[in-house]
Amino acid sequence: MKVLIISADNFEDTELLVPYYRMLEEGHEVDIASMEKGMIKGKKGYEVEANRSISDIDSDDYDVLILPGGKAPAEIRKVPKALEIAREFFDRKKPVAAICHGAQTLISAGLVKDMHATCYHSVAPEMKEAGARYEDKEVIVDGNLITSRQPSDLPAFMKEIMKMLHK
Amino acid sequence: MKVLIISADNFEDTELLVPYYRMLEEGHEVDIASMEKGMIKGKKGYEVEANRSISDIDSDDYDVLILPGGKAPAEIRKVPKALEIAREFFDRKKPVAAICHGAQTLISAGLVKDMHATCYHSVAPEMKEAGARYEDKEVIVDGNLITSRQPSDLPAFMKEIMKMLHK
Repeated sequence: MKVLIISADNFEDTELLVPYYRMLEEGHEVDIASMEKGMIKGKKGYEVEANRSISDIDSDDYDVLILPGGKAPAEIRKVPKALEIAREFFDRKKPVAAICHGAQTLISAGLVKDMHATCYHSVAPEMKEAGARYEDKEVIVDGNLITSRQPSDLPAFMKEIMKMLHK
Repeated sequence: MKVLIISADNFEDTELLVPYYRMLEEGHEVDIASMEKGMIKGKKGYEVEANRSISDIDSDDYDVLILPGGKAPAEIRKVPKALEIAREFFDRKKPVAAICHGAQTLISAGLVKDMHATCYHSVAPEMKEAGARYEDKEVIVDGNLITSRQPSDLPAFMKEIMKMLHK
């Protein structure tokens, strides 16, 4: 199983690190992609290495896409190749998991229309505007899409990701 | 399964939050105990609720003890009841998992003598002094004791905790 995390500076630290460590615990290979290779720094100060550049990603190499929140998605959503990667995951019905502001990337990619989904409360207006069936719930699964609202939802978020990966 | 985490202000944020969320993902009940009930704050600024006071803990209520690192253990190790709880887990051969500076609590409780264990590099001298068979390794399991060195060891640490809990 190969996991792709797309993020950037000012990620929500636990929303990146908890899924990252969980996937490594499970024995999966994890790539972290950002605008450029190199260290990226979370809002709370944790640093992780983005070992891939978004421009070099071939989505066919991965089984699941994870989109952490924080302020990173506001930048990620401006990168056309990041939106293209998300669309390819959806086209191939491969799992996509977005937490908090991570949903912004999916909104910009035009992928939430008619989807049952959740996100950070301040992102809810634009998610509804984009045509999603938004609900204020710790985790929502709709087809290949898993969404959660915030760090405290991480246990429920990870549980549904693991369920989808292992069925 | 019931999990006890003992920590205090200035905990290493991921070393508390990653095991906490992982146990909740698994459906386990988790109590966080500190000197007093109430919010405790990590070195990086995350806050969690200590829903128990160490003085009120009956170790018989729990199946596993987790000791995160950071600067918290330097205070926890001064609390006689915390050391007593750790000793009771060892007496009953129940799993105890300590990461980073978390091992300081076990050192003060006199529990590492002749144990094969690891810890944060700066704690290594006092761990050796206390008679442990120290090794610089991401995770070490010896009897009921699981130890790791630092946040980046969390995947290996959690893997061994889950293995011990489910056997």
